[in-house]
Amino acid sequence: MSSVTLDVREVHTLIVGALVRSRTSEKSAASVADALVEAELAGQGGHGLRRVAAYAAQAKAGKVDGFATPVVEKPRPALLAVDAANGFAFPALDLAVEPLSECARSQGVALAGFRRSHHCGVAGVVVERYARNGLVALMFANAPGAMAPWGSNRPLFGTNPVAFAAPIAGADPLVVDISLSKVARGKIMAANQKDEAIPPGWAFDADGRPTTDPKAALAGTMAPVGDAKGTALALMVELLAAGLTGANYAYEATSFFDDKGAPPGVGQLIVCIDPTAFGSGTLERFAAMADMVSDAPGARLPGRRRQALRQSLLKEGIPVEQSLIVEIEAIGR
Amino acid sequence: MSSVTLDVREVHTLIVGALVRSRTSEKSAASVADALVEAELAGQGGHGLRRVAAYAAQAKAGKVDGFATPVVEKPRPALLAVDAANGFAFPALDLAVEPLSECARSQGVALAGFRRSHHCGVAGVVVERYARNGLVALMFANAPGAMAPWGSNRPLFGTNPVAFAAPIAGADPLVVDISLSKVARGKIMAANQKDEAIPPGWAFDADGRPTTDPKAALAGTMAPVGDAKGTALALMVELLAAGLTGANYAYEATSFFDDKGAPPGVGQLIVCIDPTAFGSGTLERFAAMADMVSDAPGARLPGRRRQALRQSLLKEGIPVEQSLIVEIEAIGR
Repeated sequence: MSSVTLDVREVHTLIVGALVRSRTSEKSAASVADALVEAELAGQGGHGLRRVAAYAAQAKAGKVDGFATPVVEKPRPALLAVDAANGFAFPALDLAVEPLSECARSQGVALAGFRRSHHCGVAGVVVERYARNGLVALMFANAPGAMAPWGSNRPLFGTNPVAFAAPIAGADPLVVDISLSKVARGKIMAANQKDEAIPPGWAFDADGRPTTDPKAALAGTMAPVGDAKGTALALMVELLAAGLTGANYAYEATSFFDDKGAPPGVGQLIVCIDPTAFGSGTLERFAAMADMVSDAPGARLPGRRRQALRQSLLKEGIPVEQSLIVEIEAIGR
Repeated sequence: MSSVTLDVREVHTLIVGALVRSRTSEKSAASVADALVEAELAGQGGHGLRRVAAYAAQAKAGKVDGFATPVVEKPRPALLAVDAANGFAFPALDLAVEPLSECARSQGVALAGFRRSHHCGVAGVVVERYARNGLVALMFANAPGAMAPWGSNRPLFGTNPVAFAAPIAGADPLVVDISLSKVARGKIMAANQKDEAIPPGWAFDADGRPTTDPKAALAGTMAPVGDAKGTALALMVELLAAGLTGANYAYEATSFFDDKGAPPGVGQLIVCIDPTAFGSGTLERFAAMADMVSDAPGARLPGRRRQALRQSLLKEGIPVEQSLIVEIEAIGR
């Protein structure tokens, strides 16, 4: 596979073009492109350019409304209810940043719930924006059904990311971003394409039995991180990100990958906290813990590898497979 | 070991007596006893009567101030800062229930941070009280150092529980309560007493190598749930429960088990959300997910086993080892 190196602006233009040719407004397309570029800069290609074809197909089919305008309401002083209006998630996530930050500063804590939403991409990127605003953010997102309650074979929960970011005195924010499946579903899809077995412990077949066959795994469920504790957390995320916000649960949501059926209508919840509300010196206290972790031999501070990669890719450009560029350029022509 | 069956009132009296004889006020002792009784009813003896001797010793030594009066301040409209004043955690946790519930109802979301606090017992019991008030609660607590950042051998984090409760239409609250270590440290302490090996995967020795020797494990660190993802969550909990609230980090906190040194000074954070703020019908939506999990063959809804046990123990009484009763009755005499 030959690849070429594109700069951020070129990647952005490529994405905007494909979406605008697929029944999406310039404004929504730019917001989506911002997020997918950040995913590429984070080294998370599975949430980046490789999503463009599926996004464009969904916009073209009307499964995602590319012309949707998200709406923010404030039913209580510390609470924003955001209707993503069955558009892409990113315009709604963008729209909330300033009002939610402002609300957290005045109230001490504030909450934003997103309904009728879509794939939120790299959750760590979303929360890091709040940390760069000087705020602590905690995010829960649900996704179409892929994991079963422990002991069962019904895919009631998504792989449901939990992300957290905190501003650190004198350094980049600390960012935690984990999904609640043991491995990303993309790894199983890749093994399936190459017709290779997957390691034991990654997934279950449709009957809930452990499997190393990627086809059986894709028809079954993903193994949770930490067994029963992981599915307990995934259930919690469903209730927070969807039950509370008025979004669809995992088992009600259609796929993020095809253009079939109703909009996925998943949800997200962001808790935003002003760390100065508890007193001064909090960012220095965060720095103290970050330093202890960084200084522990063998340990890595979450988020740092991604931030270093971002700096490097901003300078050197983003390597993209030639075939992927051709595919994206052909969309909607 | 012979055991007798005591009713809730007898267990409560036993605890109050031992604490009051150990430099603790009647009021604080009653609050602690309420919590330890609930732990026994939850089948979590490790957070129940077996803590009384250590609690009493700490109160007697002044490591815990048995006469402390917790103080609640409200620096922002949606934020409570609670100073547990180096007393037991429970009087502070009790004090917050009504003002935090009230604040969540008016603001939509509210936050309580606890500093200069102590062992919070069964976190699921704490959050369930909010759910019985009709609110969603999410709690993070830190604890003395027991887990290392993934790849390192430094016990920078506690086993740090995460607990969540939501009210369910027509049923008891749904309660998730997990610690971020793979198994409870008490299991390793029990194996050590019996001089038995522990299963592989539970713990690391002081050099960070996997061990099956319980002595080496107690001198080392606990394995996190889900490897690197578990320690990322434990770090997040340290920042939320301690960094934010002004409490001590795990690596700064003294033991909950002995009477040596300064007060542990750990922290807790509770996020409390009014589920009706996003619209009506939320409790029915929570019920829909709870039913899907309950109906999935092989799955269990988190919290249900504990709630059933509580009902049964309330009726039949709590079995307590005779030797433990003798030990507690002798405290302070």
